[in-house]
Amino acid sequence: MIRIGIDAMGGDNAPKEIVKGAILATKLNKELSLTLVGDEEKINCVLDEQKADRSHIEVVHATEVIEGDDQPVKAIRRKKDSSLVVMMNLLKEGKVDAVVSAGNTGALLAGGIFIAGRIEGVSRPAITGIYPSLNPTVILDIGANADVSPEHLVEFAKMGSIFAKIAFKKDDIKVGLINIGTEETKGNELVKKAYPLLKETQEISFYGNVEARDIPKGIVDVAVCDGFTGNTILKLTEGLAETIFAMMKEVVYSSTKAKMGALLMKDSLKGMKDSLNYEEVGGAVLLGVDGVVVKAHGSSNAKAFSNAILRAAEYHHSGLIAHIKEVIS
Amino acid sequence: MIRIGIDAMGGDNAPKEIVKGAILATKLNKELSLTLVGDEEKINCVLDEQKADRSHIEVVHATEVIEGDDQPVKAIRRKKDSSLVVMMNLLKEGKVDAVVSAGNTGALLAGGIFIAGRIEGVSRPAITGIYPSLNPTVILDIGANADVSPEHLVEFAKMGSIFAKIAFKKDDIKVGLINIGTEETKGNELVKKAYPLLKETQEISFYGNVEARDIPKGIVDVAVCDGFTGNTILKLTEGLAETIFAMMKEVVYSSTKAKMGALLMKDSLKGMKDSLNYEEVGGAVLLGVDGVVVKAHGSSNAKAFSNAILRAAEYHHSGLIAHIKEVIS
Repeated sequence: MIRIGIDAMGGDNAPKEIVKGAILATKLNKELSLTLVGDEEKINCVLDEQKADRSHIEVVHATEVIEGDDQPVKAIRRKKDSSLVVMMNLLKEGKVDAVVSAGNTGALLAGGIFIAGRIEGVSRPAITGIYPSLNPTVILDIGANADVSPEHLVEFAKMGSIFAKIAFKKDDIKVGLINIGTEETKGNELVKKAYPLLKETQEISFYGNVEARDIPKGIVDVAVCDGFTGNTILKLTEGLAETIFAMMKEVVYSSTKAKMGALLMKDSLKGMKDSLNYEEVGGAVLLGVDGVVVKAHGSSNAKAFSNAILRAAEYHHSGLIAHIKEVIS
Repeated sequence: MIRIGIDAMGGDNAPKEIVKGAILATKLNKELSLTLVGDEEKINCVLDEQKADRSHIEVVHATEVIEGDDQPVKAIRRKKDSSLVVMMNLLKEGKVDAVVSAGNTGALLAGGIFIAGRIEGVSRPAITGIYPSLNPTVILDIGANADVSPEHLVEFAKMGSIFAKIAFKKDDIKVGLINIGTEETKGNELVKKAYPLLKETQEISFYGNVEARDIPKGIVDVAVCDGFTGNTILKLTEGLAETIFAMMKEVVYSSTKAKMGALLMKDSLKGMKDSLNYEEVGGAVLLGVDGVVVKAHGSSNAKAFSNAILRAAEYHHSGLIAHIKEVIS
């Protein structure tokens, strides 16, 4: 059995889509035992409505909710009976093996650091995403640490390598440093200092610099950067993909010929859109905290959230945390 | 007459596409008087081959070429008879009103700073690009300064506003600060310190923070950031657009139905691709140096290069440099 705690109140579509996602996950993986944390009445209502099989689903009541605009550290300290804090305590106490939330990212990070705790030797836990493309790339940090030191990037590289081995199910993991040129001497002070450190790091296979233009092509398995850069890359990707598809719709409506063409291409384009879709990937992971903590996209629907749960189970099953402890300490 | 100096030897397709672009520009704008700098023999050869009307084209011989991988500052100092340095001297001496090169960006920047000179009051000239989308956005810096101070961002905001007024032909210019969240308290140390400074700056209309996802949507006219972030944004856009179009081709080839659809959509998609194309926009501008310096894309063909020349003429004609001097001093 893999026991997973779920923040049933986090995200734009909570609790309905979260609970539906949990039900879906238990159908897809019979090894799961899920604990849904949040407003008992509301959760039970969705479970009943969906005629859920409750043999692998338990509900733990929590009276408060951390909202998207709550100040993360304050929220963690003050809303002691929030679904997120109660869920994180279950992880801390060893009552669940992993947790998943679609709620406030900062609060999840703060909860991971202050409740679950950092892994010894990790100075900065990182939010780790999988860049969606035909050759996906693990990127970290994507938003936990806007300012980092060169040494932090080395930690990210080590943790990211271990994570990529599990996520991509392969051993040969290449780590790149995101930079504005491929030459060793390029970049800002941070990456210029990080380059030689990464080159010397025994635990990773360092590829060198990668430019942002190569990220969608997937030329490395892991790309490390400060959280400002990583967040910018993911958000720009989201915005640009949306814009391109919106432009496509516009050009299509401008001509009957194009409209017919679009109709014929519809299924194929849908497949492409999916492969650029965060929801298909299954959320980001908080690497460096002592437990599997998965952040599902805030706008997750049931399918996206169930994917995030399945991923969390996989990460626990493959011993992600133990592997990080081994390499970092 | 607008006199423009051309680095005929810079760029992947020099001198042929550069010279052809110059000829095209003189056909499109009868007010131009162009000075092509570089290997006289090679330039004349293309001019003859194209049966060019030479009444508005002059050639100035230069024996050396700065290559793409030359170290910029060294190249400027050592290759005194390079096309780029000779061209920049023409600008310095007032023999031309503006210069255009598709060559080494760093060398053009170094030439701009050390030969043409900075405008008084500007501490860091910035490479300024126009983000290609349906609502284009002026972005600076896109690569001249990997590390900047909050005060530099204020300078960029002032220069960018003036540039956008000219480029977009409108007076109401909104300036955004690129950040990883919209709230005032978000971001790294740089942007947190820059926010209040920008808010206080009388000469601009400050919109607040903009996230990278909003750049393709064009919600501000000018977006300021350090050169590392700006370069990352432009390169990711390039790479992602390429990847999406490559994926589109792939899905199309996977089904006969989709192939027919693509054929019907072809013209419309071409139009869309063009609006995301740097070449259509006409190059980046070096703001803060004492003269109009335009950098065309390294892979410019004749059409792209002629666009860059036409833009340079427009910037000179509209008094870009005088306006910057007025606001900055």
